[in-house]
Amino acid sequence: MIPRKTSFLAAASASCALVAATLSVTARADEGMWTFDGFPAARMKADYGWAPDQAWLDKVRASAVRLTGGCSASFVSDAGLILTNHHCVASCLYDNSSSAQDLLEHGFTAARLEDEKKCPGQQAEVVTRITDVTDQVKAAIGALSGEALTKARDAKIAEIEAAGCSDTAKFRCQVVTLFGGGQYKLYTYRKYSDVRLVWAPEDRAATFGGDPDNFNFPRYSLDGSFLRAYENGKPVKTPVHLTWNPRAPKADEATFVVGNPGSTSRLYTMSQLAFEREVRLPITVATLSELRGRLIRAMEESPEHQREGLDLLNGIENSLKVYIGRTKALNDPAFTDKLAAAEQALKEKSAGNAAIGDPWAQVDKAVDAYRTLYVPYRYDAPTSTLYGYAQTLVFAAAERAKPNAERLPGYTDSDLPLTEKRLLDPTPLYPWLDQLEMSWSLSKAREYLGVDDPQSKLLLGKESPEGLAGRLISGTRLADPAYRKQLWEGGEAAIKASDDPMIQYALRLEANQRKLKQEVDEAYAGPVTQAGAKLADARFAAYGDSLYPDATFTLRISYGKVHGWTERGHEVPFQTTMGGTFDRATGASPFDLAPAFAARQSQIDPAITYDFVTTNDIIGGNSGSPVIDKAGTVIGAAFDGNIHSLGGNYGYDPVLNRTVVVSTAALQEALETIYPAPRIVKELAAK
Amino acid sequence: MIPRKTSFLAAASASCALVAATLSVTARADEGMWTFDGFPAARMKADYGWAPDQAWLDKVRASAVRLTGGCSASFVSDAGLILTNHHCVASCLYDNSSSAQDLLEHGFTAARLEDEKKCPGQQAEVVTRITDVTDQVKAAIGALSGEALTKARDAKIAEIEAAGCSDTAKFRCQVVTLFGGGQYKLYTYRKYSDVRLVWAPEDRAATFGGDPDNFNFPRYSLDGSFLRAYENGKPVKTPVHLTWNPRAPKADEATFVVGNPGSTSRLYTMSQLAFEREVRLPITVATLSELRGRLIRAMEESPEHQREGLDLLNGIENSLKVYIGRTKALNDPAFTDKLAAAEQALKEKSAGNAAIGDPWAQVDKAVDAYRTLYVPYRYDAPTSTLYGYAQTLVFAAAERAKPNAERLPGYTDSDLPLTEKRLLDPTPLYPWLDQLEMSWSLSKAREYLGVDDPQSKLLLGKESPEGLAGRLISGTRLADPAYRKQLWEGGEAAIKASDDPMIQYALRLEANQRKLKQEVDEAYAGPVTQAGAKLADARFAAYGDSLYPDATFTLRISYGKVHGWTERGHEVPFQTTMGGTFDRATGASPFDLAPAFAARQSQIDPAITYDFVTTNDIIGGNSGSPVIDKAGTVIGAAFDGNIHSLGGNYGYDPVLNRTVVVSTAALQEALETIYPAPRIVKELAAK
Repeated sequence: MIPRKTSFLAAASASCALVAATLSVTARADEGMWTFDGFPAARMKADYGWAPDQAWLDKVRASAVRLTGGCSASFVSDAGLILTNHHCVASCLYDNSSSAQDLLEHGFTAARLEDEKKCPGQQAEVVTRITDVTDQVKAAIGALSGEALTKARDAKIAEIEAAGCSDTAKFRCQVVTLFGGGQYKLYTYRKYSDVRLVWAPEDRAATFGGDPDNFNFPRYSLDGSFLRAYENGKPVKTPVHLTWNPRAPKADEATFVVGNPGSTSRLYTMSQLAFEREVRLPITVATLSELRGRLIRAMEESPEHQREGLDLLNGIENSLKVYIGRTKALNDPAFTDKLAAAEQALKEKSAGNAAIGDPWAQVDKAVDAYRTLYVPYRYDAPTSTLYGYAQTLVFAAAERAKPNAERLPGYTDSDLPLTEKRLLDPTPLYPWLDQLEMSWSLSKAREYLGVDDPQSKLLLGKESPEGLAGRLISGTRLADPAYRKQLWEGGEAAIKASDDPMIQYALRLEANQRKLKQEVDEAYAGPVTQAGAKLADARFAAYGDSLYPDATFTLRISYGKVHGWTERGHEVPFQTTMGGTFDRATGASPFDLAPAFAARQSQIDPAITYDFVTTNDIIGGNSGSPVIDKAGTVIGAAFDGNIHSLGGNYGYDPVLNRTVVVSTAALQEALETIYPAPRIVKELAAK
Repeated sequence: MIPRKTSFLAAASASCALVAATLSVTARADEGMWTFDGFPAARMKADYGWAPDQAWLDKVRASAVRLTGGCSASFVSDAGLILTNHHCVASCLYDNSSSAQDLLEHGFTAARLEDEKKCPGQQAEVVTRITDVTDQVKAAIGALSGEALTKARDAKIAEIEAAGCSDTAKFRCQVVTLFGGGQYKLYTYRKYSDVRLVWAPEDRAATFGGDPDNFNFPRYSLDGSFLRAYENGKPVKTPVHLTWNPRAPKADEATFVVGNPGSTSRLYTMSQLAFEREVRLPITVATLSELRGRLIRAMEESPEHQREGLDLLNGIENSLKVYIGRTKALNDPAFTDKLAAAEQALKEKSAGNAAIGDPWAQVDKAVDAYRTLYVPYRYDAPTSTLYGYAQTLVFAAAERAKPNAERLPGYTDSDLPLTEKRLLDPTPLYPWLDQLEMSWSLSKAREYLGVDDPQSKLLLGKESPEGLAGRLISGTRLADPAYRKQLWEGGEAAIKASDDPMIQYALRLEANQRKLKQEVDEAYAGPVTQAGAKLADARFAAYGDSLYPDATFTLRISYGKVHGWTERGHEVPFQTTMGGTFDRATGASPFDLAPAFAARQSQIDPAITYDFVTTNDIIGGNSGSPVIDKAGTVIGAAFDGNIHSLGGNYGYDPVLNRTVVVSTAALQEALETIYPAPRIVKELAAK
C-alpha cells in the first residue's frame, strides 16, 4: 500500500477557499491532461494565440521518458542524459548507499562516465507508437459481465500486447484503458532497462523545508537530478532530445508539461466519490499516520535507522499530505456540489438514450458490493518487501505455467520482463524496517477485519503481528537475490519444495487472495468497466471529443502559463530566487541549510530564479516532467503542486491550482557552482 | 487533547449495518440518559410493567459515586468501599508503580487497611442536591450575545457556585448546563479528596484481548477493582450503599446503569455534525494515529518504556476506536439521514413560532466562523504534562488576582480546590514520554497551522519541535511538586520572577491563548449558547418534557435489560463464562492468559458468568457504573460498549447497541480464588 518507490505529488483543484473551480466534464481554462493523439490545438490557439504543430508535438513526445519507478523525465542530450527530480532518484541514491557512504545525504556527482551508478528496479521508456484497439477489446468483451468480462478483457489485452512486441528486450507493449473502459489504446515503448545515476544534490538542498514545506509555495527546493539510459553497457544515443535552456521563466509565458500523470478520479460517479470519502480515505489516513509515527520514532533510535528509514518516511509523508488534501476536498460541499451538478447535467443530456441506459445505477450497485469486499481485499496480505518477493514468486510459478491469455495481469508475456527485473535487481534490505512495516500491516489487518474474522486467523494463526513478522523475516532467505533467482527459474517445483517460511506463508495466503480478486472482479471491477464504457459513450455523445481521459500513468501533455495566485487577498509571486533560501533558513531541521549551500553562499548568485509556478494541470507521476516553452526548450522540471492542488484527483481549479517547478537556471547554477559537474555542464551546452 | 486520565468508552447507536435506529428527539425503547429529577417512571412502567419508586431512586443516587478521573462508581459497603472498573484505576496503579514494583502488570491487593494506597489526582463525589437555577442564569444573560454572553453566564455561575458551597473542603458546587443552554442546574456534591486503592487484578486479566477486543463482545475481561474513600485519614462511613449481589444475570431481566456519561452530541444541528465529520474528526484521527505509532515503537525500546508508556497508549487506543467509530457513523447516510429527518421535523413543528425564530441559522453561522478558528484554538499550546503544570500556574496567578466572578472557568472559587489538587498531587513523570507527546503536538501544530503562520512562529520560534521540547523538558523544575507548590503559593510575583523555561514558555503563549478564547466565545460559544436555549425551547414546545439532555459528566440513570443481539444473522448470546477465557487464549499478546488465571485454572469455576451485555444507553464516563437489578442490588460494573455503540455520541440504536458489563459473580470468584482478598470478601458480604 505504500508508494515507496513512487513519486506521489498531486496537482489540481480544491480547498476550503475554493470559489472558482470549473469542475465540469468539459475541460476549460488550462485544465486537461491530454493524450498526444488528442491535443486540443484549436482550443489552445483560441486561448493563447498560438499552439504547437505536429512536428513540435512529435519531437517532444520522442524526448519524453517514463521512469517505471513512478516518475516522468526527458532526454536532454544526444547521449541518453535524462533530467528528472531529485525525489525521483532518491530510492536509487538510497539503494546505492551504505553506513559508510550516504549518497542520499551527501549527494552524488559522477566525475566520469564509468562512475555512473545503476539504479535497481528502474527502467526508462519512450512512447514510439499509439494504436487504437478499442474495437478489438470491446468485441472480446461483447455482452459479458462480472468476472467473465475482466477475464475476457485481460485475455484480449495479453494477446494484443504479445502480438505487438516480439522483441521484449527492447520494446514494451501496454494496452491502456482510457475513460474507464470507453477506449483502449496500445502504447508501444522503446525501453531501456539499464538506468544509471549521474548527478544529484544533497538531500537537504532538494527537500529544504521537508514535509512542512511540501506542497507549499514559495519554495526553495533544488529538486532536480540527472540519470542516463544505457544499453549493452553503453550510453544510449538519443539524437531527438530537448534543448537545455537555463534561463529564467517570464511572467505569463506559455508552458507545457509533458509526462505521465499517475492516476486521477475526475470521471468518478458520486457513489464512487462517496466511497472514497467514507471508506477508503479514512482507513488510509488513519493507518498511514500510525505507520508514520512508528517510523519517526524508530528513526530517532540511531543514525543507521535515520538513514535507512528516510526514503520510506518521505514517501509516507508525501502520500499522507495527498490523502489528507483529498479528504478536505471531498469534505468541502462547495467542491462536491459542483461535481454533483456536472453528473446531473450529464444524466439529463443522456436521458432517453436507450444505448446508454443507466450506468450510474450500475456503478452504485457495484460500489455497494465493494463496501463489503474492500477491507478483506485491502488486507489480503501484509506489506513487506520480503513478503512481496515471496508473493511474486508464488504467483509467477502458477501463472507462468498457464497460457499467456489466461494469466493474471503482471504475469503476461508483456509484463513478465519488468516483474522479473523488479524481483531480481539487487537492493539493500533492512530487516528492522521490513519488520516494522510487516508488523504494522498485520496489526491493522486484524484491527479492520476483526479478531474473529477467518481472514485474520488465516493471516495470523495463533501468532501476534510482531511474532509472526519476526519469525518470517528472520527465517527467510529471500533477501538474497541469488535465492530469488533460483526460485524464479525453478518454477512451481522449486516453490512447492521450498522450506523458506516466507514462501510457505505466501502459499498459505494464495488461495484466499485469488478468491478475493475473483469476487472483486465479479461484483465491482467487471460491472464498473461495463458501466464505464457506457459513461464514456454518454460523455462523447454530450460533449463530443473535446475531452481528456483520467490519468493512467501514460504520456500526457498539459498547457498553461507561468503565473502566481492570490492567497487570502495577498499576491503570491510566480517565482523565488536562490538568495531567498538563506533568509528562510533557521538552522533547525528541516530548515537547516544544505552544507554545500552554506559553504558556497558567497558564490551563489542570489538573483537567479530558483522555483516557479505555472497553471499546468498535473498530478502524482508527473514528477520530473520537463517544463517546456513555446520554442520546445526545457526551462524546468515539475516537482510538486501547491497546497490547493491536493484535491486535483477529483477536479481542477484554474484560480488556485499551481504546478511547482525547479528552474533550469537554478540547476545550471548548482552544476556550475554548488555541486560542480563540468562534464554535465558541457554535455548540456552541446547543440 | 489526550484523555490520559479519563475513561473514554462510548455507547449507543450506529454502524454500516444500522437499520433500526430510532434517532428521534423523543427517546424511545431503552434510549435515554435520564437525570434523577426527570426519571420517566411512567414510560418504563408501560414498557417493563415495573418502575422504581422515589425511595429506590434516592437510595441509588446516594450510593452513586463520580470519580474526577473521568469514571463512575458506587459505594458497596458501609465503610466507603467503592466498586469501579480496573481501567478507571489503571492510572492509580501506574502512578504507584516503579521499575521495581509494577502494580499495573501484577495487580494489587491491600492485605490490611493500612496497605491501601493513595490515588493522585483522584476525588470521589456524591450528589446530595439538585437545584434549578435556570431563571437566575438566563436573567444574567438577558439579551447579551457573543463573548459578553459567555462572560455574564460564567460570572453568574461562579457566583451561584460560591454561594452554594461555603465549606469547599467537604462540598463541591457545580452549575451544569443542560440542553445546550436550555436549563441550568446547581449540583451539590459531598466530596472525598482522599481516595485509595484497595484491590485490582493483573492488567492482562482486565485487558484480555487488548485493543483488538476493545469495544467487542463476546468478551473475557475482569475489568473491575475496588477503591475506598477516606476523610481525615480514616475510611468514610457510608451507611447508604448498594448491596453486593454476586449472582449471574438472567436473560431479559431489567437493569439500571447509574453513572456519569461524559458527553454526547445528540442535540447537535446538522451543521455541527458536518463540522465533526469534515473538520474535527479527520484531524483527530490522523494526529492521534501518529501519536499511537510513535508510542508503540517507543515502548518496544525497553521494558521501562513498555511499562511507563502503557497507560497513555491504552488511553490513545481507546479514544481512537471511539473517534473512528464516530467517523463511520457520520459517514453512514442511513444514520445521518435519520438525524436530518429529526431536525427537519423539529423545524416544521417550530415554524411560525416567533419566540423561537431560526436558531439553526444562528448555529450555521457560528459553525462557519469556528471552521476558521478551530485549528488555531486546538493548537494554542503543546500537549505535555509539564507544560500543563506551567499553564495552570501562569493562568492561576493572573486569575486568582481577579474577583471570583471575573475569572476563567477552572479558576473560580468553586473550581480552585480540584485544580490545586491536580496540580500539586505528586505523580511520577517520565521525561521521555512527556517529550514524545510535546514533540508530536508541536509538529502537528506546525503541520496544521502551516510553517509561515504567526502562531507557528509563536509556538516554535526558530527551534524545531524536538529541539524546543527537549530544551524545555530538560530545563524545567516543574516535575518537583514542591516547586509547583512554591509557584502556586507565590502567585503572580513568583511567576514573573521565575526563570524556569517552561514557565517562561507558558507566559509567551498566554496572551494569544486568551485572545483565541475570546474570539471563540464571541463567534462560536456565545452564539451557540444563545441558539441552544432557543433550540431547547423548540424541543420542549414540540415534545413536552419527555426528553433527556445530552450527557454532561453528571449523574444519570438508564434503564434496559440483559439481552444479546443478532450480528449478520447470527445470535450473539448475552453472556460469556470464565471458562471461555481458556479457549480464547492463544499464548500471544494480547491473548495471553494473565499468570494468575493460568496458575489457578483448575480452581476457577468455568461456568461462572464472566461478562454480559444489556440494552442500557451509556457512553464514555459511564465506565465503572454499577449495574443494578430491580431489587436495587449491584450485579455488575459497566465497562464498555459493543462495536455498534461507537456512534452513540450522535444517536442510540436499540437493535444493535449494547452495554458490556463485568459480573459481580466473576469479581467474587476473582476475590475468592484468583486474587484472594478475604478481607474484602467479608466486607462485601456484611449486611
